[in-house]
Amino acid sequence: MEPTTRDAACFEAGIKFGALYHQFAGTPVSPESADSLERAIEESIENQPSCESVEVDILTDKLEDEIEHGYTELTGRYMEVEIVIDHEGTEVVTKMEMEDGYPLMKIESVRKE
Amino acid sequence: MEPTTRDAACFEAGIKFGALYHQFAGTPVSPESADSLERAIEESIENQPSCESVEVDILTDKLEDEIEHGYTELTGRYMEVEIVIDHEGTEVVTKMEMEDGYPLMKIESVRKE
Amino acid sequence: MEPTTRDAACFEAGIKFGALYHQFAGTPVSPESADSLERAIEESIENQPSCESVEVDILTDKLEDEIEHGYTELTGRYMEVEIVIDHEGTEVVTKMEMEDGYPLMKIESVRKE
Amino acid sequence: MEPTTRDAACFEAGIKFGALYHQFAGTPVSPESADSLERAIEESIENQPSCESVEVDILTDKLEDEIEHGYTELTGRYMEVEIVIDHEGTEVVTKMEMEDGYPLMKIESVRKE
Repeated sequence: MEPTTRDAACFEAGIKFGALYHQFAGTPVSPESADSLERAIEESIENQPSCESVEVDILTDKLEDEIEHGYTELTGRYMEVEIVIDHEGTEVVTKMEMEDGYPLMKIESVRKE
Repeated sequence: MEPTTRDAACFEAGIKFGALYHQFAGTPVSPESADSLERAIEESIENQPSCESVEVDILTDKLEDEIEHGYTELTGRYMEVEIVIDHEGTEVVTKMEMEDGYPLMKIESVRKE
Repeated sequence: MEPTTRDAACFEAGIKFGALYHQFAGTPVSPESADSLERAIEESIENQPSCESVEVDILTDKLEDEIEHGYTELTGRYMEVEIVIDHEGTEVVTKMEMEDGYPLMKIESVRKE
Repeated sequence: MEPTTRDAACFEAGIKFGALYHQFAGTPVSPESADSLERAIEESIENQPSCESVEVDILTDKLEDEIEHGYTELTGRYMEVEIVIDHEGTEVVTKMEMEDGYPLMKIESVRKE
């Protein structure tokens, strides 16, 4: 079956999540450098086609509780992300949060404008 | 609107593509090391949930023509990829190829099994 | 022969450069998002041990001249970097600049304090 | 002070380690896909200048003990690496192993040939 605009919108949303995660996982991060990293992740992914907005929250409280050498490597454990895609008039809202020890990416809603 | 299984299948397909590209772009690659890199990319992404198969073709002829210091950094310019997702019985076939100087990722087909 | 403090300082400098380059190469970047990316690269690498300072200059003029889809993937072609290491009292100053179409990383000076 | 050949050799060794780690950390890995990933990491980094040999050992026993969803993301926790540099006749042997919960990279020996 031919892909629809809605399929393509969901596909684009997935691309942004995979890109965000695998580009930035492993980045050295501390409570002090979390702000600039949040900003850079948001603005870099927003460059990509059909990407309406990216909101990254690095969990500095959790970082402070858990890290031992002043910094650690960024993983899904330490961030929550919301990405909104607008692909040819179809809006897809997606989130990443930890669930069961695993950074779960999922679609919140799909809406034709 | 609630996301459907089909939406989720397309989203999963996108995640794999974004992951593949941003994990491995930048890897030093030469015509000689292309084989092992193809294999590693395929097997690593196939670990991810709902990922049926990954086929990576690194364009060694193009590498041979273009590189000057014996190797270069892998980009979309030098590879073609096909990923097949099976998410709860919905199959999504996706491809990445160069189009207009840009590595275009797209859905080929979506099929309910 | 046993490694000296000076050896270790030069080794640490190299680690920071390899880390910086391979963590951030491939990041989507545009003239508009260059500032936040510069900051994030600097602050993330400065987290690493013995890293005194990192200065990243993304070449926005070159980006503006060359990119065609509003953004591109960051490579050595579009940035200049200076990293200063202080490892147990030995200071190493290192730079990355393009030379002959290739991002060359080199030591500028080594100094015992 | 001007950098010596020995300084440059240690610097080159560090670059390879930083590159290896930040290029491949985050790659999805399972006991089954560990072999192909070891090979790809070795051959890709061996492309880089002055890199004599790279040996990567992904700790599949540890993977089997610790992972819960069939795979995980590669980190220093799951690999040991030895890199040998030969830079203009100076050989540097370097290793990465876990020490105190942290992937420690260090020089084993420096030798003028």
